[in-house]
Amino acid sequence: MDQSFGENAKAWPKTSRNKVRRYPARGSYDQPDVYKILDAALLCHVAYCIDGQPYCTPTAFWRNDDRLFWHGSSASRMLRTLDHSTPACVTVSHFDGIVLARSAFHHSINYRSVMAFGNAELVATDEGKLEAARMFVNRYFPGRWDAIKRPSAQEMKATTFITMRIAEASAKTRTGPPIDDEGDYVLPIWAGVVPVQMVVGTALDCPRQHQQARRGADLSLYRDGRPLGEVLTEASEAVSRAKP
Amino acid sequence: MDQSFGENAKAWPKTSRNKVRRYPARGSYDQPDVYKILDAALLCHVAYCIDGQPYCTPTAFWRNDDRLFWHGSSASRMLRTLDHSTPACVTVSHFDGIVLARSAFHHSINYRSVMAFGNAELVATDEGKLEAARMFVNRYFPGRWDAIKRPSAQEMKATTFITMRIAEASAKTRTGPPIDDEGDYVLPIWAGVVPVQMVVGTALDCPRQHQQARRGADLSLYRDGRPLGEVLTEASEAVSRAKP
Repeated sequence: MDQSFGENAKAWPKTSRNKVRRYPARGSYDQPDVYKILDAALLCHVAYCIDGQPYCTPTAFWRNDDRLFWHGSSASRMLRTLDHSTPACVTVSHFDGIVLARSAFHHSINYRSVMAFGNAELVATDEGKLEAARMFVNRYFPGRWDAIKRPSAQEMKATTFITMRIAEASAKTRTGPPIDDEGDYVLPIWAGVVPVQMVVGTALDCPRQHQQARRGADLSLYRDGRPLGEVLTEASEAVSRAKP
Repeated sequence: MDQSFGENAKAWPKTSRNKVRRYPARGSYDQPDVYKILDAALLCHVAYCIDGQPYCTPTAFWRNDDRLFWHGSSASRMLRTLDHSTPACVTVSHFDGIVLARSAFHHSINYRSVMAFGNAELVATDEGKLEAARMFVNRYFPGRWDAIKRPSAQEMKATTFITMRIAEASAKTRTGPPIDDEGDYVLPIWAGVVPVQMVVGTALDCPRQHQQARRGADLSLYRDGRPLGEVLTEASEAVSRAKP
């Protein structure tokens, strides 16, 4: 069933699940394209089915090689359902702009998105869970794990980590200006792109901040005004470099 | 089956589908709370199931009263599947910040999200489709429909509009600083929030812009540096005011 390749794979196979049908030229099945989009994001949307009813849950996620991880309380519906390996679809999307064309039909969106398919399963062992918790913190804030209070045994018990090996994935991207029908460029209608971007703001101190607490190196990438995607990509690269 | 209230409803019933289980105090079933989150967004993620396999598709959407609308090519998998009324879950999420606590366990995300459930169905009539196309353009750019080239009969045939009456919905929100265990506030570990925000950039002219083309009033809300959520909320209010 699992049609993905091994660790040295360069692309996923094109299947009925991950095939980009609409505008196939915007699609890619190459691992580097997919990973780049995943690694620039913090939030994903996880879709799963219970008795034919779809659910779509937004949650923080991270990637380690060809595995995605996310987490939540042991009590949450999604994670109870995914308990014993369940098909899931993890979607990541970056919204980059609104494309205004001369004709209604050619209005569009600039975006980068990934749909990743696989079977979601629990991280079963205590060691696996602790490593997942460490990755979770360090992936966004490289080195922060060493600076904070570690989870207690009780907290770890209350936390579920889910992992999904990416069996199939595809990326889909639209960039650039509107593309109107050739005959419509003579129309004096304003056309172009309104770009949008997720941007980091000024960090806010906790109102109960300890007077000796200082922002550490783990936060150094999060400078006011930076695009979040850039920050997350750099944080992801820092984590990769630190790997043994 | 449809447990939603009529047009004057103030809240949706709490059911097994839309009940906020994890951190129930963060949940709301009130229409104004749900609509506010929906109307500040352009993108949603639609989850649907085909033979037990979940799919999660990002797409532009808009709201009219208690109905959501989205669209796509008549060829797309999602819309072929949703052809004859299919359960769907439409999720909208705004990512507002990363919450850094003193303990690993209390790290969190600030967000506003909605999960809306119902049966998705095709907009069946030509009149309904044209009205959906008009709403689609005007909802983001109030008045733009009157300035652009209308879709041809062939383009309308190639376009599918989907609508879903919200049968049940819930909103979930987290705001504010980290909340650590009382005993941990004495730790000299930096804690706070890194806010993030979707921001509008400088509009880019189409490289093939007609020399007499000017940005119209339809774009006036999209000023450089504005939070996108603010722009979309105001555009939505303008459309509501223009209703007969």
